[in-house]
Amino acid sequence: MSDQEPSPAVSISHLPRHVGRSVTLRGWVTHLRSSGKVRFLVLRDGSGLAQAVLVKGQVPEADFAAFDRLTLESSLVLEGLVRAEPRAPGGFEVQVTALTPVHLAQDYPIAPKEHGVGFLMDHRHLWLRSPRQQAILKVRDEISRACRDFFHARDFILIDTPILTPAACEGTTTLFETDYLGRGKAYLSQSGQLYLEAAAMALGRVYCFGPTFRAEKSKTRRHLMEFWMVEAEAAFFTLDDVMALAEDLVRTLVSRVLERQQPALAALERDTGPLEAVLAGPFPRLSYGEVLERLKDAGAELAWGEDLGGDEETLVSKMFDRPLLVHRYPLSCKAFYMEADPADPRLALCVDLLAPEGYGEIVGGSQRVADLDVLLGRIKDHNLPQEPFEWYLDLRRYGSAPHGGFGLGLERVVAWLCGLHHVREAIPFPRLLDRLYP
Amino acid sequence: MSDQEPSPAVSISHLPRHVGRSVTLRGWVTHLRSSGKVRFLVLRDGSGLAQAVLVKGQVPEADFAAFDRLTLESSLVLEGLVRAEPRAPGGFEVQVTALTPVHLAQDYPIAPKEHGVGFLMDHRHLWLRSPRQQAILKVRDEISRACRDFFHARDFILIDTPILTPAACEGTTTLFETDYLGRGKAYLSQSGQLYLEAAAMALGRVYCFGPTFRAEKSKTRRHLMEFWMVEAEAAFFTLDDVMALAEDLVRTLVSRVLERQQPALAALERDTGPLEAVLAGPFPRLSYGEVLERLKDAGAELAWGEDLGGDEETLVSKMFDRPLLVHRYPLSCKAFYMEADPADPRLALCVDLLAPEGYGEIVGGSQRVADLDVLLGRIKDHNLPQEPFEWYLDLRRYGSAPHGGFGLGLERVVAWLCGLHHVREAIPFPRLLDRLYP
Repeated sequence: MSDQEPSPAVSISHLPRHVGRSVTLRGWVTHLRSSGKVRFLVLRDGSGLAQAVLVKGQVPEADFAAFDRLTLESSLVLEGLVRAEPRAPGGFEVQVTALTPVHLAQDYPIAPKEHGVGFLMDHRHLWLRSPRQQAILKVRDEISRACRDFFHARDFILIDTPILTPAACEGTTTLFETDYLGRGKAYLSQSGQLYLEAAAMALGRVYCFGPTFRAEKSKTRRHLMEFWMVEAEAAFFTLDDVMALAEDLVRTLVSRVLERQQPALAALERDTGPLEAVLAGPFPRLSYGEVLERLKDAGAELAWGEDLGGDEETLVSKMFDRPLLVHRYPLSCKAFYMEADPADPRLALCVDLLAPEGYGEIVGGSQRVADLDVLLGRIKDHNLPQEPFEWYLDLRRYGSAPHGGFGLGLERVVAWLCGLHHVREAIPFPRLLDRLYP
Repeated sequence: MSDQEPSPAVSISHLPRHVGRSVTLRGWVTHLRSSGKVRFLVLRDGSGLAQAVLVKGQVPEADFAAFDRLTLESSLVLEGLVRAEPRAPGGFEVQVTALTPVHLAQDYPIAPKEHGVGFLMDHRHLWLRSPRQQAILKVRDEISRACRDFFHARDFILIDTPILTPAACEGTTTLFETDYLGRGKAYLSQSGQLYLEAAAMALGRVYCFGPTFRAEKSKTRRHLMEFWMVEAEAAFFTLDDVMALAEDLVRTLVSRVLERQQPALAALERDTGPLEAVLAGPFPRLSYGEVLERLKDAGAELAWGEDLGGDEETLVSKMFDRPLLVHRYPLSCKAFYMEADPADPRLALCVDLLAPEGYGEIVGGSQRVADLDVLLGRIKDHNLPQEPFEWYLDLRRYGSAPHGGFGLGLERVVAWLCGLHHVREAIPFPRLLDRLYP
């Protein structure tokens, strides 16, 4: 082939455009098979899978011999003629005319057999190459894009809120702390909300989407030390507006993944029935009081004033096949910045959105306290120092207005839509109680 | 008006759709003026500015009286009839039929007069309300979206790389450090690159876009302690591919901002001539050696092997009206993971992209070392411990391949395109050597 121009290098996902033509593919070996004078391999390049066939006598002898040295996960470049082959993984086959190994992999540690989770997590940098992990990451990418498209279409402006902050938003016990250049302590942000509130008074509608941190000694399938959260905040939004926006967002994410990520959902063997059911009608809305009644009927009585735990959330959300909006929790369960319900000041104008299939809370939001004196009282009641909140109090001194917003936890949504057992697979490099490596 | 249905609440940016109709606007006062029986105010709601006019006798007496209590930055709700008015700020005027103050602002600290930077930075949460800061944030939002659209259109998958990492990518002197749940130290990431390399071997083409951290005791107009970086990495990419992609991205960002953010550029009084010049032709490419010659001709001789400093960058980039790609620096100036040039092993296969108008380096990229033994030697040469890099070394053990990528600093691009003197205005809540508040 040396006298000819090399064929154009293409992605496997673009093969449908090149049927009947010669192309160059570059990627890694995922399967190898020999049968007489024919050699087969399946190549992956991140965009898809393609079957490649070598027939003795139809490729240079050295290239044919090179095949027999290939190992799983070896990298290579091949040239060949593309044809449709419905029986091949990916639907296309390449009749190879040249094969050049790039690097022969050592004995690849992840075999098709089952490995323990600890082993796979230790090899997360390689585990990402598996079809299942690739599918999850593609769904995650889709959900992230869909969030951004959703807010942009509704005139929300992106405001990147700071990670290094001088004070805690919700208590100090679960904060990662660092020295700020010898000038005092800084804490890793648990939420961009307070900063978004400032930006909402400038730009009206704003959102942030970044990593957040909780140094929480929790070891559950819903907790990460570092996770991504998309948060929205809008001036003049009431609790009803917050609920409508959160429902609209979740509905949009489900429908977008169903529309565009069918191959990934199929690779994950995700039953899409429950996801389609989500779109069948409006999400039920229950007050905290109504939830207590439902729990009582189900034999899981909770005293008024107690927060819903994971078990209660799961129990009540399993009563519905669509996500559930639970609103107006007791103010005493909730953060200092939540507005009280004028109709019953024991209640907060807040909402949690619980995913179905036992995935629990994926959204938390509220209307925020607008009045300066009320907010000062809350800071005092929660034993928070006033000084670090002076700038936040300024928002109530200079043109305060009703406003509200919510946060949505990305990994929990990814876990739900992909049908994962644990959020650790929903992020490329999870940070868990006992895991900071790789 | 109490017997009527309230008019629909709309954003000021949507007023063109409502000419001749009654609407409700909600926002803040930016200007007030009285003239006989007529009162004028300019309202901002984050989406735009609208002029509102009250005529005595045409609004309820109480509403007219309420006007006279308004202060700058007071929040209010008003109803009125929309008409086009080319002379009004924003181009529309609302003939008010009802006005309800929501909150009367105390004496607003930011007056139209000039304040010192320290004062404005202390009041960053309020300063964001100024037209200039709003314009910058809208350009930032546009650039962020354009980056994501750019990579998505080219089949790059978003990989959120971790912030909490067990080891340093480029030395340990400029790292923020935190205790990881009593299990050892964690460091705030300076770059997602090493993790992206792992993901590129799984997904082919990947990018990340998140906050990065440098605890650098620098006090220049180009440095932040916390800044956002978009980084891309692709398997089988050579230095030429990296340069082409970086040029394409920068060109796309400039053209997108020129297309969609003219009002913001006008608010910033940005001369768009130099930005249009960027699009006029390909970006010049000079090797480090060629740059040394240019510097010598300009009387700023530098010995071979010395890195270009900010002054040299500025000098050479001012020789061109388009961004400049400087490639193949001495390997000794550069990070351990850069591939050597086979044509001259003293050189790294790397590139910096320097913005014009003295804005300096906005992109840095390279082809990465593919060979295990070479990489082991580099880790040793750079006095780095091997153990924390074991997972990274695995990428060279199992199907290694040529690959490369680059990082682009968001705030520097925002500063350049907006024509800002200092990057501190290019991020909503800047973190500087001496500033962690608000």
